Amino acid sequence: MNRPSLYTSLSPALLHLYNVRDCVVVVIDILRATSTIATALYNGAKSIIPVDSVEKCMRLGRDMECITAGERDGKIAEGLQYGNSSFDYPRNFIEGKILVLTTTNGTKLLHMAVAKGATEIVTGSFLNFSAVCNHLIKEKKNVILACAGWKDKVNIEDTLFAGAVVSRIKEHFEINCDASQMANCLYNNAKDDLYEFMKKNDASHYHRLTNFGLEKDIRHCLTEDLANVLPYYVDERLVV
Amino acid sequence: MNRPSLYTSLSPALLHLYNVRDCVVVVIDILRATSTIATALYNGAKSIIPVDSVEKCMRLGRDMECITAGERDGKIAEGLQYGNSSFDYPRNFIEGKILVLTTTNGTKLLHMAVAKGATEIVTGSFLNFSAVCNHLIKEKKNVILACAGWKDKVNIEDTLFAGAVVSRIKEHFEINCDASQMANCLYNNAKDDLYEFMKKNDASHYHRLTNFGLEKDIRHCLTEDLANVLPYYVDERLVV
Repeated sequence: MNRPSLYTSLSPALLHLYNVRDCVVVVIDILRATSTIATALYNGAKSIIPVDSVEKCMRLGRDMECITAGERDGKIAEGLQYGNSSFDYPRNFIEGKILVLTTTNGTKLLHMAVAKGATEIVTGSFLNFSAVCNHLIKEKKNVILACAGWKDKVNIEDTLFAGAVVSRIKEHFEINCDASQMANCLYNNAKDDLYEFMKKNDASHYHRLTNFGLEKDIRHCLTEDLANVLPYYVDERLVV
Repeated sequence: MNRPSLYTSLSPALLHLYNVRDCVVVVIDILRATSTIATALYNGAKSIIPVDSVEKCMRLGRDMECITAGERDGKIAEGLQYGNSSFDYPRNFIEGKILVLTTTNGTKLLHMAVAKGATEIVTGSFLNFSAVCNHLIKEKKNVILACAGWKDKVNIEDTLFAGAVVSRIKEHFEINCDASQMANCLYNNAKDDLYEFMKKNDASHYHRLTNFGLEKDIRHCLTEDLANVLPYYVDERLVV
């Protein structure tokens, strides 16, 4: 039986090593772009337009009367209305609306994948873990798990999510990829309590967000299937 | 107390994220460049000249009457005399001689570090694990553990060595680096039997070298302190 391949790119700076054409690219930015994307769409957002600059975000916001949101270095970017937290997007606020979003790492990686010729892009987070895994199993196409990291450095939480996916779907794929095996091993160490694992291992993002008082956000973003939809990228926007 | 910093670069393609100046860069290519370097120097080689091309290796071999060695894609490169195995360099062969070496990943990474302005470069392998750790503790300078990986992809064995170093010396350093924490976690899972861990996790290099019949080489390269010297780079060559 010929199984499709699965690779993990631990940083945007490693994405060029993988052929993103003709496969499903899963963009992963656990804290917090892809968690927020899943939440907003789960709560009824019409679509999310990921953009790569604050300026473009503001311009689209004016032109299309949509909600502008995003962060730089973990804080709401100047000139934008909302931040990059799932809690900013409850149903009674976001339902039926279009969200324009820009973030330090996640939206940049998505555009990088597009530029490299990716034709099928979905976003993954623990909040929509099962939806992503079920889709990958059903599609039977090659998969690249693309971690956003932090300014091209690898990070623990995106790697943990890649490991969770590997752990769940590995029987369906041919995995000749040390990064995937390492992610899987890391996840198996952490799965009993992902939050505690991040804290114990001094995850840099744990410190960054905890300094901003966002422990609740982190715990939320590490919880499986609270917003179990499959955001996919089409016509320059994410929809379900 | 101000402790020096420690970072791990999991791939040469990530090295640009770290400031290699004014710190100790440990070049890591467990299978097999840095293991071979430690062995040859331990067995009395006068020096090792790492070069980045087979042609340069052959030219130096002619000009300086030294031993030329190296591999491309895991096999002895055409035109060179010897390969990249520790077992090629027993004392009765290498003592007092100069070795010119070129490899797929390790020697390239070393030259990359030099080009980026690194002024203090040592090479690390399990064979000279304690010598490296003791040096890093004694120096009290910032450290970058630079993994060679395989053609810019991260690999398990170089990450394991980085993790072993982190595990041994972490009390002496400030570690705000997810890659280092991940490596440490991986090593703690693997340390009881590194060879078995690589086999169990389908390490790509395990397969590559096992296909060439090099299981004995792998086991050797995963053994601590069999060639416990500190190779450092000075005047374009490695010496102890």
